[in-house]
Amino acid sequence: MSRPVLTISSKNYSSWSLRGWLLCQLAGIEVEEQPIALDDAANRAELLLLAPSVLVPRLTEGDVSVWDTLAIAEYLAERNPEAGMLPKDKAARAHCRSISGEIHSGFYNLRSALPMNLKARHTNFKVFAGAQPDIDRVQTIWQECLTRWGGPFLYGARPTIADAMYAPVATRFITYNVPLNPAAKAYCATILDWAPMQDWITAAKAEPEELAELEVEF
Amino acid sequence: MSRPVLTISSKNYSSWSLRGWLLCQLAGIEVEEQPIALDDAANRAELLLLAPSVLVPRLTEGDVSVWDTLAIAEYLAERNPEAGMLPKDKAARAHCRSISGEIHSGFYNLRSALPMNLKARHTNFKVFAGAQPDIDRVQTIWQECLTRWGGPFLYGARPTIADAMYAPVATRFITYNVPLNPAAKAYCATILDWAPMQDWITAAKAEPEELAELEVEF
Repeated sequence: MSRPVLTISSKNYSSWSLRGWLLCQLAGIEVEEQPIALDDAANRAELLLLAPSVLVPRLTEGDVSVWDTLAIAEYLAERNPEAGMLPKDKAARAHCRSISGEIHSGFYNLRSALPMNLKARHTNFKVFAGAQPDIDRVQTIWQECLTRWGGPFLYGARPTIADAMYAPVATRFITYNVPLNPAAKAYCATILDWAPMQDWITAAKAEPEELAELEVEF
Repeated sequence: MSRPVLTISSKNYSSWSLRGWLLCQLAGIEVEEQPIALDDAANRAELLLLAPSVLVPRLTEGDVSVWDTLAIAEYLAERNPEAGMLPKDKAARAHCRSISGEIHSGFYNLRSALPMNLKARHTNFKVFAGAQPDIDRVQTIWQECLTRWGGPFLYGARPTIADAMYAPVATRFITYNVPLNPAAKAYCATILDWAPMQDWITAAKAEPEELAELEVEF
């Protein structure tokens, strides 16, 4: 049987692609990665936050096509229940889905002010003031999870869907040197050390700079 | 045992509240509605699309608290599998989750240009040009579903999570008299005729006009 296909775009810039890919890693499935041409107009619009993310990530398997990160998450959790992508405990599971929903539909200012860029490091970046409430809310969420479930991942010893959803945010906080509380700092380190993240970041850094001009537009 | 509590805000203006409530109806659970004070600053900010929707809707049941529409949807679908909130067929189920994810995270221009207002009827409303691609995309989604699964609901004879997610959009198209293709028109009529929608709209129309000043701000 052929492997499921995961359509993604830039590993350096596309936070939604990263989420979709991490979810497949969590599910323990091997996918064939199908990159979308970076000169595709619709794909560029999506990277620039101008259009909804319909093209990437998309998982295709037999007659199933699923194209939204949360939809991919639930599809995979149902497909591979033994992978433990959601916490087993009912209250933790509901909490995990709630904070995953929050990052999925919200934090617009954070996403537009601090776009993912794994190759970059800005030591003196002036964060747009409008993004600060989002940054504070993310830290509150992380701190609550780490306190309640003991870390190092949001729901304990093993990563879940929520860690995949928040992973790009951790990279942004590091890229833009955002001042963080100690719990948030520790969580960012956990995410950056996570083996699949290391693999993704290595691939992102090796990516040719076809999108260099986008940095100006962001 | 006490009933689950569903925290909501204005029935006339809060599309997220409507989605959460419809999901409970789909699950067949009776909830105790707990309205949030409309003079609450955080709640006003959420209604004005200035802040993420953390307060409403929120479903509380025992030690479970779940506060995002998609999280509520998945929580309820898992709690009451016999309610059929998701299509049974795997491909339809993945499709249902994908389009539900799309309306959850996207269509920002549509949501801000055409805020839900069940009491109003604008026969000559000038739709913001930036919202037209969203309007077109919604019609494409509906038409594809109705063709593929035969209607009158998106996945056939019975409403699913996706119908709850798109229901407020149907009311907006009617409120602002948006020109629609025949399939989209028929779907709006189906949604408006759906018994729980009729109940909600009746309650919305009876709601005191505490929020009248918000109309100016929208």
